[in-house]
Amino acid sequence: MKILIIHGPNLNLLGTRESAVYGTKTIKEINDSLENLATELGVKLVIKQSNYEGKIVELIQDSKDCEALVINPAAYTHTSIAIRDAIAAVDIPAVEIHLSNIYKREEFRHKSLISPVVHGQISGFGPESYLLGLRAAVSIANAKKGTS
Amino acid sequence: MKILIIHGPNLNLLGTRESAVYGTKTIKEINDSLENLATELGVKLVIKQSNYEGKIVELIQDSKDCEALVINPAAYTHTSIAIRDAIAAVDIPAVEIHLSNIYKREEFRHKSLISPVVHGQISGFGPESYLLGLRAAVSIANAKKGTS
Amino acid sequence: MKILIIHGPNLNLLGTRESAVYGTKTIKEINDSLENLATELGVKLVIKQSNYEGKIVELIQDSKDCEALVINPAAYTHTSIAIRDAIAAVDIPAVEIHLSNIYKREEFRHKSLISPVVHGQISGFGPESYLLGLRAAVSIANAKKGTS
Amino acid sequence: MKILIIHGPNLNLLGTRESAVYGTKTIKEINDSLENLATELGVKLVIKQSNYEGKIVELIQDSKDCEALVINPAAYTHTSIAIRDAIAAVDIPAVEIHLSNIYKREEFRHKSLISPVVHGQISGFGPESYLLGLRAAVSIANAKKGTS
Amino acid sequence: MKILIIHGPNLNLLGTRESAVYGTKTIKEINDSLENLATELGVKLVIKQSNYEGKIVELIQDSKDCEALVINPAAYTHTSIAIRDAIAAVDIPAVEIHLSNIYKREEFRHKSLISPVVHGQISGFGPESYLLGLRAAVSIANAKKGTS
Amino acid sequence: MKILIIHGPNLNLLGTRESAVYGTKTIKEINDSLENLATELGVKLVIKQSNYEGKIVELIQDSKDCEALVINPAAYTHTSIAIRDAIAAVDIPAVEIHLSNIYKREEFRHKSLISPVVHGQISGFGPESYLLGLRAAVSIANAKKGTS
Amino acid sequence: MKILIIHGPNLNLLGTRESAVYGTKTIKEINDSLENLATELGVKLVIKQSNYEGKIVELIQDSKDCEALVINPAAYTHTSIAIRDAIAAVDIPAVEIHLSNIYKREEFRHKSLISPVVHGQISGFGPESYLLGLRAAVSIANAKKGTS
Amino acid sequence: MKILIIHGPNLNLLGTRESAVYGTKTIKEINDSLENLATELGVKLVIKQSNYEGKIVELIQDSKDCEALVINPAAYTHTSIAIRDAIAAVDIPAVEIHLSNIYKREEFRHKSLISPVVHGQISGFGPESYLLGLRAAVSIANAKKGTS
Amino acid sequence: MKILIIHGPNLNLLGTRESAVYGTKTIKEINDSLENLATELGVKLVIKQSNYEGKIVELIQDSKDCEALVINPAAYTHTSIAIRDAIAAVDIPAVEIHLSNIYKREEFRHKSLISPVVHGQISGFGPESYLLGLRAAVSIANAKKGTS
Amino acid sequence: MKILIIHGPNLNLLGTRESAVYGTKTIKEINDSLENLATELGVKLVIKQSNYEGKIVELIQDSKDCEALVINPAAYTHTSIAIRDAIAAVDIPAVEIHLSNIYKREEFRHKSLISPVVHGQISGFGPESYLLGLRAAVSIANAKKGTS
Amino acid sequence: MKILIIHGPNLNLLGTRESAVYGTKTIKEINDSLENLATELGVKLVIKQSNYEGKIVELIQDSKDCEALVINPAAYTHTSIAIRDAIAAVDIPAVEIHLSNIYKREEFRHKSLISPVVHGQISGFGPESYLLGLRAAVSIANAKKGTS
Amino acid sequence: MKILIIHGPNLNLLGTRESAVYGTKTIKEINDSLENLATELGVKLVIKQSNYEGKIVELIQDSKDCEALVINPAAYTHTSIAIRDAIAAVDIPAVEIHLSNIYKREEFRHKSLISPVVHGQISGFGPESYLLGLRAAVSIANAKKGTS
Repeated sequence: MKILIIHGPNLNLLGTRESAVYGTKTIKEINDSLENLATELGVKLVIKQSNYEGKIVELIQDSKDCEALVINPAAYTHTSIAIRDAIAAVDIPAVEIHLSNIYKREEFRHKSLISPVVHGQISGFGPESYLLGLRAAVSIANAKKGTS
Repeated sequence: MKILIIHGPNLNLLGTRESAVYGTKTIKEINDSLENLATELGVKLVIKQSNYEGKIVELIQDSKDCEALVINPAAYTHTSIAIRDAIAAVDIPAVEIHLSNIYKREEFRHKSLISPVVHGQISGFGPESYLLGLRAAVSIANAKKGTS
Repeated sequence: MKILIIHGPNLNLLGTRESAVYGTKTIKEINDSLENLATELGVKLVIKQSNYEGKIVELIQDSKDCEALVINPAAYTHTSIAIRDAIAAVDIPAVEIHLSNIYKREEFRHKSLISPVVHGQISGFGPESYLLGLRAAVSIANAKKGTS
Repeated sequence: MKILIIHGPNLNLLGTRESAVYGTKTIKEINDSLENLATELGVKLVIKQSNYEGKIVELIQDSKDCEALVINPAAYTHTSIAIRDAIAAVDIPAVEIHLSNIYKREEFRHKSLISPVVHGQISGFGPESYLLGLRAAVSIANAKKGTS
Repeated sequence: MKILIIHGPNLNLLGTRESAVYGTKTIKEINDSLENLATELGVKLVIKQSNYEGKIVELIQDSKDCEALVINPAAYTHTSIAIRDAIAAVDIPAVEIHLSNIYKREEFRHKSLISPVVHGQISGFGPESYLLGLRAAVSIANAKKGTS
Repeated sequence: MKILIIHGPNLNLLGTRESAVYGTKTIKEINDSLENLATELGVKLVIKQSNYEGKIVELIQDSKDCEALVINPAAYTHTSIAIRDAIAAVDIPAVEIHLSNIYKREEFRHKSLISPVVHGQISGFGPESYLLGLRAAVSIANAKKGTS
Repeated sequence: MKILIIHGPNLNLLGTRESAVYGTKTIKEINDSLENLATELGVKLVIKQSNYEGKIVELIQDSKDCEALVINPAAYTHTSIAIRDAIAAVDIPAVEIHLSNIYKREEFRHKSLISPVVHGQISGFGPESYLLGLRAAVSIANAKKGTS
Repeated sequence: MKILIIHGPNLNLLGTRESAVYGTKTIKEINDSLENLATELGVKLVIKQSNYEGKIVELIQDSKDCEALVINPAAYTHTSIAIRDAIAAVDIPAVEIHLSNIYKREEFRHKSLISPVVHGQISGFGPESYLLGLRAAVSIANAKKGTS
Repeated sequence: MKILIIHGPNLNLLGTRESAVYGTKTIKEINDSLENLATELGVKLVIKQSNYEGKIVELIQDSKDCEALVINPAAYTHTSIAIRDAIAAVDIPAVEIHLSNIYKREEFRHKSLISPVVHGQISGFGPESYLLGLRAAVSIANAKKGTS
Repeated sequence: MKILIIHGPNLNLLGTRESAVYGTKTIKEINDSLENLATELGVKLVIKQSNYEGKIVELIQDSKDCEALVINPAAYTHTSIAIRDAIAAVDIPAVEIHLSNIYKREEFRHKSLISPVVHGQISGFGPESYLLGLRAAVSIANAKKGTS
Repeated sequence: MKILIIHGPNLNLLGTRESAVYGTKTIKEINDSLENLATELGVKLVIKQSNYEGKIVELIQDSKDCEALVINPAAYTHTSIAIRDAIAAVDIPAVEIHLSNIYKREEFRHKSLISPVVHGQISGFGPESYLLGLRAAVSIANAKKGTS
Repeated sequence: MKILIIHGPNLNLLGTRESAVYGTKTIKEINDSLENLATELGVKLVIKQSNYEGKIVELIQDSKDCEALVINPAAYTHTSIAIRDAIAAVDIPAVEIHLSNIYKREEFRHKSLISPVVHGQISGFGPESYLLGLRAAVSIANAKKGTS
């Protein structure tokens, strides 16, 4: 089983800036924790980061051989219908995750354009959000296999 | 470590009705999975259900000897400032969970009055939401211990 | 055939206060008219009143042996998603009634959270609203029987 | 006692189209049931249908020798201030009825411009809405007589 | 010089009903005062009333030989884009008048769809509104002549 | 194959007024172009114009022997639920067209009450909008035939 | 009979600036026309202009010996509750006038805070608005006298 | 003279938690100050606290032998129409008080559903709000006595 | 200790007009009661009234030698950011008071621009509002002294 | 004559996914139909697809040697001011097309940021929308040529 | 060349209060920097401050011999249509400046009624905003001269 | 000292198109003026333009060796949270500039998503906006140096 992990815009800066909001872990450290958990759960990961909306659209379009998607759309959560349409177009289950609790932040971050097309959303647990998201994705993918 | 689990209104009906929306697992079965995971994680659970807003307020007020709270506020998610105030008043970390993806449902379910006062929110994974919530709560409580 | 009648908050005061808005009939007199009509229509009534949202949720959950529900949710019409969810969760047809014409009153009374989950709504006919509601409920319950 | 029944626009099509929303009874069958109930209640009916807002305004203006009005304004419910003003201008009590539960349908159907000027509203019981409306109208007209 | 006067829906009832809002003068009496003032000002009047939006559209389209229009659109003030478009399409100056002060009444009467296409609006002076409107119309028509 | 063409209110004035907005072609010239194209496409046309909302409702109701409808609802686009309901009630495919680009005009013209019940909408191409609309209608009607 | 005329802020500039919007007549010329009409109608005028909201409040408070008020509140139309309260506090009838048609201008000029407390409003006739306003004020004051 | 004092949800926690917002005085200390002031003013107090909306409704319904009500509805200020209706239904004057200045807090706390049915509101003075509220209540009750 | 009392626009008319809304006491009588209470509490008063927003701004700026401010901003409550900024700029505690219950009046009076910068608000008790406001101001000023 | 055709984000997936919404034709098949019609109309096509907003901006900027633009902006219809500005900046006429009827879909798809800067819009006819768009573009380009 | 500088309400307090928001420079020091820069740029300044909206209106009206206006309208930015109208009425170019970044502050400060009538706006640079504003004003006035 | 200048989407077209809105200077000429001023102020510039949101995000991320940022986000001003987040993430001060006065243009251009995270905003001075922005940036960077 292969799971696609997508980090959205500005997440390449993780750990180096605004640590009060996003924590002190770098994206490299988060990816390592994800790989560790993946090994424990017996799945493989494909991990990507992009600051381009169009690139993220194409990463999702190219996810055909993955069985689930874990995505942190970051700023594009609130502005990208193109990413929403890409997720709706592919038929692998998706999990939306956020490091910070978006409902504690500015009004415009409370509305996700992505959430209506994903299986579920996890928000506010810092790097732990990614690990919970991976667990959720594997669980959904397994359930789907079981019923097919 | 003791974790308080609160089921909100109508969740006592789980598994017996509207299975298209909420799944076929009963509240009893969910509680059993929670107990199993609790054992695995080495924590104890206090599990409560109530259909009364006032009762849920008091369950939260009485959580003093628990180290974290996992709550599915159900319908009160969108209407109860009293529950929000109770969570803000006690100082144990809280995790808000939902069985269904509330962002796929009626407009009025998209807004949670609870989310700005909890640590994080998990929505849309069915009974798995509870298990992810418990993992998250234990992780936060451990982190808190570590820093104190 | 058994029909459940639920009176919401403050309706226990009927006839003794604010008669300009709600009329001079007491809840006792309304219940008597309902019993008379029930006898005429050959059905039995279970009549309850509560000022607690949580209690009304449970009265609805416990309506399993009734074939229809007539409910005047009063103030909870506009604030209770918990009662809405309870009605949606049980599978007996429901009729929402109001003594006053809620569309002639304050703006916030124009929006019913309950109406999208009931079979129909009757508003503005004073105590007659209850009698029309009972007739409607019996008619729906009969139609349902006929088709099953 | 004479009661005016007005069917609004497109109701002449009843029973022949969109039966999923409006049922399979034709306007002729509904009128027959109304006449039967009228006979039972000892009142006479004047029944009209029009697709023209201006015509409905004039039907209401000409209702002087009727003691009550039962109106299904259909689409004009949400757009006609002229019909609202006509009802407010004549001094016979009016009952607004709808076949479908308008609160279950599109957002723009939730707001009635007519309801603030009628005695009461009945919505969602199919052809039964007309019969309940006739009962309500007769009851109000009788009460009015009794007090004059 | 010929001036077209149009009375909108329900104005045929003037003086016979709701005198608290619209005064006790009948439409006949208002028309007589208008004719008297017309004689004084040396102009001729064409006076029409209709309850049909479509008819009012056509009365305006047929105003070619008139040099100004005085219109009380009544209920259609707030709902008719068709009348607005008809006024914009003909090139004679128009004056919008109202018997009652529409800004003292229900919220939905505060917004006129007609006012952005007329020369000016007069509201709240009872039958005097018509006389002021006629004066205004004659004054504008004269000014227009003077400049052409 | 017979196609019904409906021109809404004020379109009888086309070409004679406000040519800056609506162009210089008369309704007669547009109808001639439509007939020419119809001949080319091998279909027959029934062409109607009305300024009355109620009349347009009835023209649509009477379209039974036509295989598609091309309608320019003009001002009623934004105010008529009755016309919307009539289109939804008949089962021939409909095409909504506009001479001007309604999205470049006043805010209230941006919202069409008609578009959610038609097959598609064409807006902004002047008289060409009618010709494109006829092509679209014939294409849909042919596709429908092919599948039945 | 004495009538108070109040010119609001920036009206001292009339005729010298922005003549496209406000015309070419100076405030002096408008006052002269008003005096001429006053003589014709047999009334006396007190004419004031101020750019200060507080001053206009006091001019209204000091209107005790006047029998009516004609006010062009200009910019304060849309922002001054203090002037509104002053008009409501004194018991002489008031007429609100505007040179330009405020409903053709920016959105924020469509809403008058003053209109709900005046007898009527006249908008859009240029300097003629003042003359119509004076006629209206005299007519109301006469009617009031007649009834007392 | 007897005055009813009602403390709403979570006020039982006063002084023990969130002292930055609500101060350091416990509910016991506030009640003691109230009793002291009551003695000084020569009135008796009935003091209640509840976390249940339904219970507060019933406390108000049962206030018949009291001459005024001082209520801090806390979270229910913004969500309870049932409490509003209960206050409107009983005919003793009510004073609404808040410890914190609700207009300095979250947007949703700026709107009180209770204030339109009380005599007056006092907000922002900490425990002093209760004392001012008691003074106000006694003053109103005395005035009422004086006029009856 | 010196306390500044500011009466806003139109309050100089108190007791002479609109007594149904504002009571029959004149501003002179209210000032006398205030002086009496001040004597009782051992403080001195500086009392001012102005109808000018700019003047009220300057009265507040000049309050340096006062230890608290009691202000009834009247109409400026809802429109003056300048007064709000003046209160925020000076560092003496302020109490906002209103004679009438502003939450029972027109929608636009429900929103105070002043309340977020004052210590607390008292609304609805008539002249008693001033006395309660003075007590509150003295209490806050004393508390502030105690802590400094 | 050269016409630029631009396909927006996710349209490269056409025909392979979500055929219920977008039909079963691939982008290749649509392009082939477009080429066929272009040959018939005697024009040349430049056809592009991109998932990047910035790329689409540049494709439009580079359209200098084309005489018209047919664009399906897909998801960027509702979110891209950059594409709107690019279309406004170049001076070739543009036609906006949509496969699905966007007015039948989610609320956020009803608003096009693009439509106010294009010549006209065609929505809802599936692949036929492209063909109608090409015809419209050629017709406008021809008309433009004729007048220059 | 003469430039008019206007400081709005409360700016006379600059440097003495709320230095966290507005900085520590006094209005005297800002005026000195302005004079220095004016000397450098070879222009003369007229500098005024007022707390009265009406006074600021008149300062602007009296600016005839100045070639540009630099205004910091402070609180009146968001509430004064009278100042907006005065700026629009005079024909010298205006520059709006703000010390603080108004888009970082309360929601109601984000909307300027003044900005649509000025040449440009500068916000957020503290006293530097005035200097940049003076440079901008001189540059516009020079450009205007150059073109006339 | 090095300052980064970023030109957003479509600014590469400057001077060649829509000169009525954006002026006749090309981006090359603006850059030359900027370089001249930079030389005068003794700073170095890095100047970039991109039509891609993702690219602009990365230009900002890569600004580490610059001491300030001057950005004209153009269309992305109103739609890009990603650019906002990038600016917030890097810790060099930013100045937002616009050629046109965005508050004079379409409603959707009045709201900047960028302004709450920049030091200040300059809007409406054409190419001069860039020069003022550069001066502002240098001034802030100098002040920052001075305090560190």
